[in-house]
Amino acid sequence: MERSKIVNLLGSENQVDSVLVKGWVRTRRNSKTFSFIEMNDGSCLKNIQVIADGKLDNYEEIKKLTTGSAAAVTGKMVPSEGGGQKWEIQAESVEIISLAPEDFPLQKKRHTDEFLRTIAHLRPRTNKYGAAFRIRSELAYAIHKFFREKGFRYIHTPIITGSDCEGAGEMFRVTALDLDNLPKADGKADYAADFFGTEASLTVSGQLSAEMLALALGDVYTFGPTFRAENSNTSRHAAEFWMVEPEMAFCDLVGNMDLGEELIQYLIRFVLDNCEDDIGLFAKFVDKQLMKTLENILNNEFVRLPYGEAIGILEKSGKKFEYAVRFGSDLQSEHERYITEEYCKKPVILYNYPESIKPFYMRVNDDGQTVAAMDVLVPGIGEIIGGSQREERADVLSARMAEMGLDKEEYWWYLDSRRFGSVPHSGFGMGFERVLMLMTGIRNIRDVIPFPRTPGNVEF
Amino acid sequence: MERSKIVNLLGSENQVDSVLVKGWVRTRRNSKTFSFIEMNDGSCLKNIQVIADGKLDNYEEIKKLTTGSAAAVTGKMVPSEGGGQKWEIQAESVEIISLAPEDFPLQKKRHTDEFLRTIAHLRPRTNKYGAAFRIRSELAYAIHKFFREKGFRYIHTPIITGSDCEGAGEMFRVTALDLDNLPKADGKADYAADFFGTEASLTVSGQLSAEMLALALGDVYTFGPTFRAENSNTSRHAAEFWMVEPEMAFCDLVGNMDLGEELIQYLIRFVLDNCEDDIGLFAKFVDKQLMKTLENILNNEFVRLPYGEAIGILEKSGKKFEYAVRFGSDLQSEHERYITEEYCKKPVILYNYPESIKPFYMRVNDDGQTVAAMDVLVPGIGEIIGGSQREERADVLSARMAEMGLDKEEYWWYLDSRRFGSVPHSGFGMGFERVLMLMTGIRNIRDVIPFPRTPGNVEF
Repeated sequence: MERSKIVNLLGSENQVDSVLVKGWVRTRRNSKTFSFIEMNDGSCLKNIQVIADGKLDNYEEIKKLTTGSAAAVTGKMVPSEGGGQKWEIQAESVEIISLAPEDFPLQKKRHTDEFLRTIAHLRPRTNKYGAAFRIRSELAYAIHKFFREKGFRYIHTPIITGSDCEGAGEMFRVTALDLDNLPKADGKADYAADFFGTEASLTVSGQLSAEMLALALGDVYTFGPTFRAENSNTSRHAAEFWMVEPEMAFCDLVGNMDLGEELIQYLIRFVLDNCEDDIGLFAKFVDKQLMKTLENILNNEFVRLPYGEAIGILEKSGKKFEYAVRFGSDLQSEHERYITEEYCKKPVILYNYPESIKPFYMRVNDDGQTVAAMDVLVPGIGEIIGGSQREERADVLSARMAEMGLDKEEYWWYLDSRRFGSVPHSGFGMGFERVLMLMTGIRNIRDVIPFPRTPGNVEF
Repeated sequence: MERSKIVNLLGSENQVDSVLVKGWVRTRRNSKTFSFIEMNDGSCLKNIQVIADGKLDNYEEIKKLTTGSAAAVTGKMVPSEGGGQKWEIQAESVEIISLAPEDFPLQKKRHTDEFLRTIAHLRPRTNKYGAAFRIRSELAYAIHKFFREKGFRYIHTPIITGSDCEGAGEMFRVTALDLDNLPKADGKADYAADFFGTEASLTVSGQLSAEMLALALGDVYTFGPTFRAENSNTSRHAAEFWMVEPEMAFCDLVGNMDLGEELIQYLIRFVLDNCEDDIGLFAKFVDKQLMKTLENILNNEFVRLPYGEAIGILEKSGKKFEYAVRFGSDLQSEHERYITEEYCKKPVILYNYPESIKPFYMRVNDDGQTVAAMDVLVPGIGEIIGGSQREERADVLSARMAEMGLDKEEYWWYLDSRRFGSVPHSGFGMGFERVLMLMTGIRNIRDVIPFPRTPGNVEF
């Protein structure tokens, strides 16, 4: 008999005379003449209830089944007389695949997130983390579906890179040199002897490469891992995280904002439609405001606010911020949250930031002071998207690079793209884990990544 | 007016009175009173033909439009009187967005693949590479679609890893240490001072982590970058490539083979259905046997052949191989190709390999000599999938690890998964670029990756 997944059985319209279920025991309790076994196979949040009658051959073993054990059950799926579930299985056989010892850590009680991080290999077997990783999967699918429906091409930009992109934070070095016997030249590490013959790092963004493909294929996006070697232990930063980076030829800043808004609303709608039970868990146990937060984003047009106006609003707010507010300084998280959560009370797209605080590749506006940058802020999370129209004018780009002391030799290919068939184009980066945190109410990035990498943590 | 993509216009059933197209000039030729401009916007292989009449205001400029220039055209799309295309645009305006200089490298002539690798930032603008990267995108989508339809969850396993997985070849080191002033302890590099407090590398496979998630969620798969620091300059190996790794709880070797066969046939069918024009280019210009190769895979059940029988076939072949054939030695590419291309003339799944040549995690068969491993071979490419049923018995696994000198402390979490709720499970790895090479007839892996990484090459 072919095995059925529990998600399919529980969605059945009719009783099934003969089923085979394989999964793990969540709980078991014995009555006088039979045992109730709650089984889960990871296909959905819900368990299926199995009734094992005392007359089964191996009932003495069945009634000792421990939490975490694996079993295969055959039987008949019939309407459940107990409350709480529509169907249950009257077992005809219960084969014990493996018996979990009593020190299985996930006994039926509440565990802290901190403890569960120390057993990241087992935590997906809990309701909460199982749900989080199922949502993670659906969210990833939604991203591909959204872009494909709009005619975007998925591209893989390099993970190992020779360029420093935007000088965005610290980068991890990648090397095949023997560090215990490091070859040296002029007293320094000799990268000429390394695998690539030069210094190499882990990418912090696929943008510059993605631009090359947008200028050939039109609309493209990346979805891959990116890295920051920042030694900061916050709940919002990991050393390894996944990023989505669309890049569009013939698109200006307004088109870029439109895409960001449409994308975020699409993703929320998709997850609500496809992960009802799993989202329900988070709305009930993790963040009571979750549905309100998501509906606020779904049901509102995003406010579009120039940076300059945002500064004015912050100055007039009468709030005491930790970091001072002035035109020309970057907005801190506290400022962004005031704007989106308290002032606008809905998602906000800030745009036209001062040139001085933004990278070289952002398009300079006609005022000569600001660039065509945009950040999307949502209540509860803050910044979720950062992007810009790119500087397509070769002369302006060169001047900006010179100003910022960047080596043009190193970016010869990037500059080439402005010499040959340059066109206005735009794009943004969206942190995948940020979206997942928004969607679940989970407040620590370590809890939305199966095996998170942070300072001191590279286990599993 | 909203811009139309050329792929949509060319697919139109009806003439369109008013269109706006933006793209790049592939060729232009002038007749006495007008210019023909072939424009491409990357949305598909085909160009759209634009007729620019001599009466247009800026005709003097239009008739000097160079290959690679960018333009925006408005006009009427009408049936084409010339051969070769169904529709053409009678231009009402031609706005020149940017004029490419005469040294634009992609003039209308044949370029070698070797030359095009040196301008990897521009080569996606050629027909061949544009087609390859569009197929790459569709193939990636097909993978997600296939697995989701079967109830698999997409998971992200770590890129930076503290474990050596299977000792599979050389690994790249990841470090945040200052190599010019390397901290030392006992004369060796002091990883205690590094970002993770210990040695870290780039992953060669997500399998071990994926197993942890399969034992929680049931059916899962990874699709992400993997790395090998092997200093070999072959046409089949890159330092960075993408791998697909499904992992299934409650699945044995036969189920594993079934999935591999179904997956490959699904992917070919999907790409043939969705990339007709782009595949057509490869079938016409790159590999005249392409359609035959693909149809052979689509229309045949895969032969399933134990390793031992394959050795017998090779011994009886009368062929002179470079590497000797004997039971207990690994099969070389020449042996695999003989089996699949000459002997079976169809795809072959070899299984039950000698234990001595396979990694510790493969399930030992009852004969005590072989393991439940399988490789899928296809004519023209050779091995495209390698996998196994995993050893789920804690005691057998421990013994194998001891035999192979692996440190059990380091794999405590992996061994944990056999203590708690262990079940039979299986999975495999499929090289994404291998499939893309199969699908296009491209014979060098450098030409199916936008910006390939190989020894000495980390540019772009």
